[in-house]
Amino acid sequence: MTTHILTLICADRPGLIHDVTAGILDIDGNIVENAQFADPATALFCMRTVVDTEVTDADAVATAVRHRLGDTDIQRLHVRPADVRPRTMIMVSRADHCLVDLLYRWRNDLLPVDIPVVVSNHADLGDLVRSHGIEFVHIPVTADTKADAEAHLLDLVREHRIDLVVLARYMQILSDNLCAALAGRAVNIHHSFLPGFKGAKPYHQAHERGVKLVGATAHFVTADLDEGPIIEQDVARVHHAMTANDLVALGQDTERLVLARAVRYLAEDRVLLIGDRTVVFN
Amino acid sequence: MTTHILTLICADRPGLIHDVTAGILDIDGNIVENAQFADPATALFCMRTVVDTEVTDADAVATAVRHRLGDTDIQRLHVRPADVRPRTMIMVSRADHCLVDLLYRWRNDLLPVDIPVVVSNHADLGDLVRSHGIEFVHIPVTADTKADAEAHLLDLVREHRIDLVVLARYMQILSDNLCAALAGRAVNIHHSFLPGFKGAKPYHQAHERGVKLVGATAHFVTADLDEGPIIEQDVARVHHAMTANDLVALGQDTERLVLARAVRYLAEDRVLLIGDRTVVFN
Amino acid sequence: MTTHILTLICADRPGLIHDVTAGILDIDGNIVENAQFADPATALFCMRTVVDTEVTDADAVATAVRHRLGDTDIQRLHVRPADVRPRTMIMVSRADHCLVDLLYRWRNDLLPVDIPVVVSNHADLGDLVRSHGIEFVHIPVTADTKADAEAHLLDLVREHRIDLVVLARYMQILSDNLCAALAGRAVNIHHSFLPGFKGAKPYHQAHERGVKLVGATAHFVTADLDEGPIIEQDVARVHHAMTANDLVALGQDTERLVLARAVRYLAEDRVLLIGDRTVVFN
Amino acid sequence: MTTHILTLICADRPGLIHDVTAGILDIDGNIVENAQFADPATALFCMRTVVDTEVTDADAVATAVRHRLGDTDIQRLHVRPADVRPRTMIMVSRADHCLVDLLYRWRNDLLPVDIPVVVSNHADLGDLVRSHGIEFVHIPVTADTKADAEAHLLDLVREHRIDLVVLARYMQILSDNLCAALAGRAVNIHHSFLPGFKGAKPYHQAHERGVKLVGATAHFVTADLDEGPIIEQDVARVHHAMTANDLVALGQDTERLVLARAVRYLAEDRVLLIGDRTVVFN
Repeated sequence: MTTHILTLICADRPGLIHDVTAGILDIDGNIVENAQFADPATALFCMRTVVDTEVTDADAVATAVRHRLGDTDIQRLHVRPADVRPRTMIMVSRADHCLVDLLYRWRNDLLPVDIPVVVSNHADLGDLVRSHGIEFVHIPVTADTKADAEAHLLDLVREHRIDLVVLARYMQILSDNLCAALAGRAVNIHHSFLPGFKGAKPYHQAHERGVKLVGATAHFVTADLDEGPIIEQDVARVHHAMTANDLVALGQDTERLVLARAVRYLAEDRVLLIGDRTVVFN
Repeated sequence: MTTHILTLICADRPGLIHDVTAGILDIDGNIVENAQFADPATALFCMRTVVDTEVTDADAVATAVRHRLGDTDIQRLHVRPADVRPRTMIMVSRADHCLVDLLYRWRNDLLPVDIPVVVSNHADLGDLVRSHGIEFVHIPVTADTKADAEAHLLDLVREHRIDLVVLARYMQILSDNLCAALAGRAVNIHHSFLPGFKGAKPYHQAHERGVKLVGATAHFVTADLDEGPIIEQDVARVHHAMTANDLVALGQDTERLVLARAVRYLAEDRVLLIGDRTVVFN
Repeated sequence: MTTHILTLICADRPGLIHDVTAGILDIDGNIVENAQFADPATALFCMRTVVDTEVTDADAVATAVRHRLGDTDIQRLHVRPADVRPRTMIMVSRADHCLVDLLYRWRNDLLPVDIPVVVSNHADLGDLVRSHGIEFVHIPVTADTKADAEAHLLDLVREHRIDLVVLARYMQILSDNLCAALAGRAVNIHHSFLPGFKGAKPYHQAHERGVKLVGATAHFVTADLDEGPIIEQDVARVHHAMTANDLVALGQDTERLVLARAVRYLAEDRVLLIGDRTVVFN
Repeated sequence: MTTHILTLICADRPGLIHDVTAGILDIDGNIVENAQFADPATALFCMRTVVDTEVTDADAVATAVRHRLGDTDIQRLHVRPADVRPRTMIMVSRADHCLVDLLYRWRNDLLPVDIPVVVSNHADLGDLVRSHGIEFVHIPVTADTKADAEAHLLDLVREHRIDLVVLARYMQILSDNLCAALAGRAVNIHHSFLPGFKGAKPYHQAHERGVKLVGATAHFVTADLDEGPIIEQDVARVHHAMTANDLVALGQDTERLVLARAVRYLAEDRVLLIGDRTVVFN
């Protein structure tokens, strides 16, 4: 028996669930988990189905379902065996709080990804990464070398057949081209406040304004910096005696929890993208 | 067009979603919302489907689906028009925090129920209830009159064709018979702590122990007092300078939010009961 | 015995607590609650002390403490009997969720304020207010009458000797003059998101962006719209199947809880303002 | 300049803050942080003061304050330089989630403790501990060797002059004698539910009951197993599709956050014990 994860985005119409499940019955599949959502705003239909079947070939499952969908306007139809873990590249700079948390969860089987490589624009975290038996690639970035560095990055993505790129406090701004090349498969973590603060040193701005909550947002990477579709968010409570540095520390705790949840959702194909919104089947 | 809410609990087997959706297509139905869950522990399958169709008769919808399910072992198959709001009886004693909150939400169309009657073992809240245009029935309870009082209650349930009974801080213990008569359609709200405290004055016990959180649990009423299947829970944070009375006030805020959420879930047929657990499609 | 609440903001220096407590001992006072905070950023010292004493006159208590503080640079020194509740004017428009919550808490002695008057630019909520035995003043506002309306408002503030103005979803923008006149004694409630959304229909923008949390911020009213010092904040969780209207309803639940907490903190003199930040001794 | 942390528990009476601050002025101290609480239930007064002074000797500071307190009934008066970090012994079994988190925070200067030794009844985590440059002592425990093992433990506590013992998922029950020997300086982390579940496999019981929240409690170790005074608590949200194992994983995330917070509070002398309750000045 193989367990497959099927995800579908298509134009909404009556009978869709019936057709998908017909395709699954055609290959003697048994649905063990299922979720769907019809979005009134976009008239799109989203579905995530986990299927047990003796068919091992993911393409055969997809073909069976596609056959039943007929001429439905399909935006995404993807099937993969559940035990084929997404090949994930983590990108970091100097801050290690998110990286340490991701590696811990990965080593303890709490994060269903393979991590063939970690990339950084600094050398600092190399020993930590290699001690986990993972390749560490140091790609320094300056204004002059940025284009080459990004080309190097994309080479690594191709070479390692990367499915998912995780920006775990990677402090370089990606070019629009790189964002486009990674569209839909790169996640970033970002501090967040109510209300938001523009410009430098946001924790210090938040502190000066006396915020009572600090938060973090994990979102898809898009050319519009820190404005990509939101995957997960959370907050922690703050009080007046905390310094700006205390806020940073608390914010980092929130960042690592939120990023770890977002990566798990992505690794389990729980996140579907419709326009600028995510549907998260968690 | 009529919108129906269908809920189903049956023995799990391959093809169930396909069969249910076939039944829905048979009546030219369009699924606008759908959720399901196959429980490995009980081998039961739960489904909640919201369907738009020109068939106005809920029984006709149920019949169409039942026909397609064949000889599947069905534990529950229920269909009702979404705009037929559950007829709800609220029961209170003297504390009004939950009642006020429920009536506010009801009056502002945030709680899709009809409330033909409120019952209390005290007269105190009569004016409040009547000022909302709702009948108030005062049924005093003493050790001697308890059996009669409960018979009176059940008469009201029958007479008003009550679908849902909400114990909104009703401080009388229901007899096992009454619990059985209301099984699956009565919800209670209860303060809750980590860990729990047995016996009288639990907020005071919690205070003496120095708890840092107080909470509330909304659960189905069963003969096993305060141990029924859990529908919703939440907590609020506490600190050492709070008195036991401060804990009570904070706990009441939590109680009314948790109960209001639970009643809404029930009113929208989002809560399915399998064994001692609830499946909440929220 | 009279219980007084003393609040102090002054330039920080060694010996301040000793001096304040000396002043309290001079009037045979006993400290029942005390909190202080020395802010490194502003070099200001904040203190809130609750004192039991046979001295009934609040000015006499203040004088005793001021005497001991000598030539310390004092920004605020305020004493009032704890049982003299702040005279509070609530301002509303059409949305009643915050008003109903505040009135409920006030009637149940959970909010230590007196409410002599509620003002609205609409007549809708008049019956509700009057049913609580509170005067309701309808002051319509148009572009032409705005100046007169604000003058009328300030007359009411003077006439009723108002200590605290609560904007409980009052949907008119206050002029800079009015903001200045109410500086430090007016609180507003505002929806909040991570990150923030500028412009009209923020819940709809938040929905389009797929936020996972909606929140509310209670803040002091300043000329800088919705940017005043923050008193309290909270959030609630959101998922993809919620409509923009669902977000509004959930946001309103958060708004009323946050505003009620902020008003209580203010009513108990727990909020001290240093620059653009609040110190909240809760 | 030396920064000292002073903590005091004594019988409540008027003038205490004035006397303590007099003692601090006697040694030309400047108060940089201060908190106190008078508990009506026990008539005890608790105070935590952070003082800058040129007096380096903590005993001299304590003596100055004690002198001013006169014949006040003192339960605890403790002063230590803030940069002398508590010597902390961590005890573990096989689960490493709390240990990894504590070591991460310690290595990143987020946890102001020294960790001379980690003890375990299993050898599994030895490499991890030693890779941090910390001594690892394996003390197996069987019914026959328990007394010897506990004697060995106490030897280590003495030898390393341990101030704080952290049971980071140490799965052996401590004898009453050991609990007594460690009274007030040992903290344990425990999963917690609303309501509580007695007996084995609590996560499985919680799952069967359909809880919507799982939590964790950090508490002082006392002979009354898992019933010691509570230092910190938190919860995480659960839904019906989570397995008992999912609950375990989520509970572990909560455990490590709660334990880390509790250890930091203890390390900064923020936790005072009055009867069975803690006062946490955080």
